[in-house]
Amino acid sequence: MRIAQIAPLMESVPPRLYGGTERVVSHLTEALVQQGHDVTLFASGDSVTSARLVACAKEAIRLNPAIRDYIPYYMIMLDKLRRNAHLFDVLHFHIDAFQMPMFRDLSNKTVTTLHGRQDLPDLLPLYRAFPEMPLVSISNAQREPIADANFAKTIYHGLPLDLLAPNYEPRGGYVVFLGRISREKRPDRAIAIANALGLPLKIAAKVDKVDEAYFREEISPLLNRPGVQYIGEINDREKRKFLGDALALLFPIDWPEPFGLVMIEAMACGTPVLGFRCGSVPEIIDDRLTGRVVATIDEAIRLLPEVIRLDRRAVRRRFEARFSAPRMANEYLDVYRSVCRAARRPLLVQDDTMLGPNVIALQRKNGVDRHAT
Amino acid sequence: MRIAQIAPLMESVPPRLYGGTERVVSHLTEALVQQGHDVTLFASGDSVTSARLVACAKEAIRLNPAIRDYIPYYMIMLDKLRRNAHLFDVLHFHIDAFQMPMFRDLSNKTVTTLHGRQDLPDLLPLYRAFPEMPLVSISNAQREPIADANFAKTIYHGLPLDLLAPNYEPRGGYVVFLGRISREKRPDRAIAIANALGLPLKIAAKVDKVDEAYFREEISPLLNRPGVQYIGEINDREKRKFLGDALALLFPIDWPEPFGLVMIEAMACGTPVLGFRCGSVPEIIDDRLTGRVVATIDEAIRLLPEVIRLDRRAVRRRFEARFSAPRMANEYLDVYRSVCRAARRPLLVQDDTMLGPNVIALQRKNGVDRHAT
Repeated sequence: MRIAQIAPLMESVPPRLYGGTERVVSHLTEALVQQGHDVTLFASGDSVTSARLVACAKEAIRLNPAIRDYIPYYMIMLDKLRRNAHLFDVLHFHIDAFQMPMFRDLSNKTVTTLHGRQDLPDLLPLYRAFPEMPLVSISNAQREPIADANFAKTIYHGLPLDLLAPNYEPRGGYVVFLGRISREKRPDRAIAIANALGLPLKIAAKVDKVDEAYFREEISPLLNRPGVQYIGEINDREKRKFLGDALALLFPIDWPEPFGLVMIEAMACGTPVLGFRCGSVPEIIDDRLTGRVVATIDEAIRLLPEVIRLDRRAVRRRFEARFSAPRMANEYLDVYRSVCRAARRPLLVQDDTMLGPNVIALQRKNGVDRHAT
Repeated sequence: MRIAQIAPLMESVPPRLYGGTERVVSHLTEALVQQGHDVTLFASGDSVTSARLVACAKEAIRLNPAIRDYIPYYMIMLDKLRRNAHLFDVLHFHIDAFQMPMFRDLSNKTVTTLHGRQDLPDLLPLYRAFPEMPLVSISNAQREPIADANFAKTIYHGLPLDLLAPNYEPRGGYVVFLGRISREKRPDRAIAIANALGLPLKIAAKVDKVDEAYFREEISPLLNRPGVQYIGEINDREKRKFLGDALALLFPIDWPEPFGLVMIEAMACGTPVLGFRCGSVPEIIDDRLTGRVVATIDEAIRLLPEVIRLDRRAVRRRFEARFSAPRMANEYLDVYRSVCRAARRPLLVQDDTMLGPNVIALQRKNGVDRHAT
């Protein structure tokens, strides 16, 4: 198939450091190319891919301090794509909302993967306004706040099988916290759990500007505790050793996590996961097989020794079965094909009457269109 | 004419407090309706207008703490507008970049007024990517960083003649600073100038979140000086008395101000303006008639007494001649008509080859499209 992947421009594809969405777009793109598909990646110019790259900004926006306004780059990207839409069988968007008004008349050749949390009140009106755009959720939990939106499928993320080699004899003797220092991710819980069991804890995480006060005031004082080590942000190569040598990943989140890529990164290494019952966690962890799902710190302290004793070979096998990039690519191909089949049927006539003559007459009388939003 | 005005959704039209763009959209819309045109205003639902209102968000986004993501509302607005574009002779955009990719094929019935500073490096690629979209600048100075963009005209803002009554016998015995507390607006200069001459200074200004540290650390200590009074943010009714009773407006800015609405608000009251030579200031102030344009604090201190002695009746007359809302509406109508005339000519065939077969072959060879951005 002729497939366009439309990535965020904030990070390169793949990202140099943190960046879940761009990482997944990269894995999907490479898997589709490997299967012989004709893939074009719309992304920042410093992206690295075996697909055809259409650079829509010179480099990743987040890493370029000269860029003050990111919207122009997205507008330029949408324009390039729209003018060349006829070259593709399917347009796969990973950029939230920008494409909705401009591609609704091509909805039958679009797929939009939702990468973020969907419990913001601003999103329900969006999906209601564009009901024909097919959506993919990245967990079933992610759908809950917008259950009546036009979902084609839930497709879990996947990793290349050779990205993170399993380690069946971890030597670290520590547990890990990996990701972002933020209230949502709750590193404080990780510290409390490891401390209670006398287990060394390594924390590898970035600190966003918006979380600096939280880090300084609430987390930094906890980093002095015995056995706690903070090592900052790490790259993919470092991640392999960091996760592989760990006894378990602690994922003590306190927000509606839409997926949680780090959980499957741990599983790829054979490292079991202790996760809190929030968002996608119960779907990603196979309870008692790849980890345990808990509700409280007390329960976490009680069950972590059991998590550490889980069979790392079984964790890796489960990862391979459920969370590989080829499996993800195949599931997306199914969705692409069903979208294309739908496209061969004539489009339904669109409701174009919202501001038609009758409604306008009514608005004149009332002064205001209150149908909106 | 059948005219659509497309306003930002951040503030209502007109705004309750601060908000230059929405204020101008309101003045323009009302002046066009008064002239008998059929005007539809796309804006937040708490806007107040004699035009037909199409509400694209329930209320002004900035004042609604429940709104976390403003982009969905703009996407819904663009969609409503696009599906009803055939009902209008001209679509007048005040929302920066969002409309560019989606309305370029209708460029011959669009006008985009640029309301912000244009010296950001992200804007030149934008206007180059959409060269057929007709633009209106709000001062000639605003155009400088993007001089080769597709400008139809410079149109200065205007106010309804009865909005601010002139006061030819001001009783305040003070000078004023009105607007925002920020490094760009330089309230510290206003304080230094007034202090040097022993003149009372009243400051009416909002403090944005981003400027709170600047206010606390650099401005707040200066507010204790004799004769300096800070009164916070004021509304339109308060503004009338505040400006009318002032001996002069101090506008000691240090940034490329695209227009500076407060200068003409002062002139409407008959109050002369001392402005610093930046951005639009030399175009808006008629030197020695409605104020003086200076380059340094010393020059400002030397010339402020002369500014205060200017003939307030002449200031008001000049305001009426140059900065009325009906004059602004007439200039926009000229632009609308020239756009419509152009629309009757067949559109040039668009350059659709950027990603055509030849370029694609080249990209395959090189791996990357480096033409972009």
